Amino acid sequence: MNTSNKPVKGFLLDITGVLYNSDPNTIGRVIEGSVEAVNRLYAESAVRFVTNESSRSRKHLFEKLTKLGFTLKEEHIFMPVPEAKRYIKDHNLRPHILEFEDLDTNNPNCVLMGDAEAGFTYETMNAAFRVLHETSDPLIVTLGCGKFYQRIDGPCMDVGGFACALQYACDARVITVGKPDKQFFMTAVDDMGLMTDEVVMIGDDIVSDVGGAQKAGIRGVQVRTGKWRQSWINHSVKPDLIADDLQSAVNMLLKKSVN
Amino acid sequence: MNTSNKPVKGFLLDITGVLYNSDPNTIGRVIEGSVEAVNRLYAESAVRFVTNESSRSRKHLFEKLTKLGFTLKEEHIFMPVPEAKRYIKDHNLRPHILEFEDLDTNNPNCVLMGDAEAGFTYETMNAAFRVLHETSDPLIVTLGCGKFYQRIDGPCMDVGGFACALQYACDARVITVGKPDKQFFMTAVDDMGLMTDEVVMIGDDIVSDVGGAQKAGIRGVQVRTGKWRQSWINHSVKPDLIADDLQSAVNMLLKKSVN
Repeated sequence: MNTSNKPVKGFLLDITGVLYNSDPNTIGRVIEGSVEAVNRLYAESAVRFVTNESSRSRKHLFEKLTKLGFTLKEEHIFMPVPEAKRYIKDHNLRPHILEFEDLDTNNPNCVLMGDAEAGFTYETMNAAFRVLHETSDPLIVTLGCGKFYQRIDGPCMDVGGFACALQYACDARVITVGKPDKQFFMTAVDDMGLMTDEVVMIGDDIVSDVGGAQKAGIRGVQVRTGKWRQSWINHSVKPDLIADDLQSAVNMLLKKSVN
Repeated sequence: MNTSNKPVKGFLLDITGVLYNSDPNTIGRVIEGSVEAVNRLYAESAVRFVTNESSRSRKHLFEKLTKLGFTLKEEHIFMPVPEAKRYIKDHNLRPHILEFEDLDTNNPNCVLMGDAEAGFTYETMNAAFRVLHETSDPLIVTLGCGKFYQRIDGPCMDVGGFACALQYACDARVITVGKPDKQFFMTAVDDMGLMTDEVVMIGDDIVSDVGGAQKAGIRGVQVRTGKWRQSWINHSVKPDLIADDLQSAVNMLLKKSVN
């Protein structure tokens, strides 16, 4: 838990489970009050969106949010793919890719994993396993390490478990890019020109959002939407605030920051 | 490493990678000399077969080995399914099953995992995840925890990684039935009426076969067939003997036990 009492000058928002809920049959379902909350943040504060999603481009995600009724700027959405690309280039890696596109993948010497979806089959996992099995220093770069995400029809395994599967099978090292990695939060905080103790992160994942932000010196707010579980009351991560939903959190925090 | 110098009176043999290699297109390929080695063991010693395979019945495996040219008794094959059934019954568990059949699966309160094969898809993993996610004390019972097995066309992820994936996603407990669990080796040792220090285990898996046996007080012999990797020379598990293949191991050990 972070004990900063500084006024909140900027907000980082998780997207899925905070702005809308995933639905396998539609583009998603807006969480009540979240459109208005985003509007209020743009009017009265600073806001950036930080998500580990990787299976689609930022443009695609921006268009989806716009269709859902949100008003925001595309460049305010932060996704881990650019950071992953930077890491891969800096370390001369040639990734074998599980579940997203648009990178050179010749003669791979590491595995890059993104959103866990139906494309994670025994065959695709095994192909990644064989790449790692052949290398002397097996390395997995994963965009986030979430345990699960919440869809309208129920909870769904996220990429973290599948990264563990490969790590175990190959005794591989794992590098996490995206939440909860500090660097990812910092990129968005820097973009607002703020200090970490002037910012709050609002998310539905107690580890990736709340715990990750707190480790970066950012106050972490847990919402009771998306994947929220009542049992997290006893979680080792202690949010700075638990709010019913995004709108409730924003209303509480903006009020507070005015005082 | 086990330092018993007692004569070897009984042999435990792993099957895949020791007797034959898996091949997705045929019933398998016999490893040279292994038929003769099994014959010699039946003639001059005692022998039992211990495998973590679970996707098919013992009868099916016996018939496959017979077709491949081996002469053995069906009741000398030890597989983990009966032990898993006993564990499940003793603990009043109702398993959700990944990858094998023939158990009551109503209203599941745990997950039982067997051989990792093509049936491990995102959908089947997620169905298991949802069962565990709903329970207050999530439990996975896994038949072995192997990292990989060797097929003619290359190495293949084994069940261990997939158990890790579910364990991570659900913070579940994991119970391993089958190798390397001591109880599994003991069942086969007891069946020969021998003491653990009179027995050797011959296998291609440094952890499940060699390390598991050694922890049970059984000498562990590593063969350079199946999934054998040269890098295991530096493994923390130190075999009592490393032999080129089953026949070579048997010839060395029977000779020795005669002395």
